Amino acid sequence: MSDPVIDEVRFDAHGLIPAIAQQHDTGEVLMLAWMNAEALAETRATGRVCYYSRSRQALWRKGESSGQVQHLVELRLDCDGDSLLLLVNQTGVACHTGRRSCFYRAERQEELVEIAAPQISPETLYGAE
Amino acid sequence: MSDPVIDEVRFDAHGLIPAIAQQHDTGEVLMLAWMNAEALAETRATGRVCYYSRSRQALWRKGESSGQVQHLVELRLDCDGDSLLLLVNQTGVACHTGRRSCFYRAERQEELVEIAAPQISPETLYGAE
Repeated sequence: MSDPVIDEVRFDAHGLIPAIAQQHDTGEVLMLAWMNAEALAETRATGRVCYYSRSRQALWRKGESSGQVQHLVELRLDCDGDSLLLLVNQTGVACHTGRRSCFYRAERQEELVEIAAPQISPETLYGAE
Repeated sequence: MSDPVIDEVRFDAHGLIPAIAQQHDTGEVLMLAWMNAEALAETRATGRVCYYSRSRQALWRKGESSGQVQHLVELRLDCDGDSLLLLVNQTGVACHTGRRSCFYRAERQEELVEIAAPQISPETLYGAE
């Protein structure tokens, strides 16, 4: 069966596509991660965002260990079909450091400065093992 | 000379890093493109966004042919150092189709629908050759 969304998605040579997660109501860009076809299919089927972890080479159900899940509000595709924009509702924080967004470092006077503090400790998120 | 920003940037195996362009004041995500070290250096030096075109394998000074330039307002780096978020001021439209954002297709009832119309024709942007 042809799928009118998947038909337009162009995965790269590794079978992956970059996906930007943006908080749907505030517009905050939370993170960039990757999806393979299976992660994208699961995300569309369940409404909970699932990525593909390139380091672990496995599906990465966002929030599975931390509880900080992302609910999909809308899936968007760019003009070339090779990037996804996920409008999400992020529970808690997106970043494994405990910050709301992974983009918490900004260049100021040619230095990188942290512009956001953790809202929760990584130990609380992942346990203190 | 060590550069405190570049020291934290992790380019991929092809020497590239994905860069999200976001309109700085509205929060609209405009596009995702790629930078190599040279494109990133030029962007930081000039304040005008320069990408690396993977299809043309050359620097891509955004707006050079269309006039739709991106002025860099702030450069941000994610926690892993492998994605950039560019807060920009976009002149006109970001997309080569004449739309403000490249992410103009959204999934609705398992179909892709266009949620934004062109503001300017590609012929006007690039000439009617």
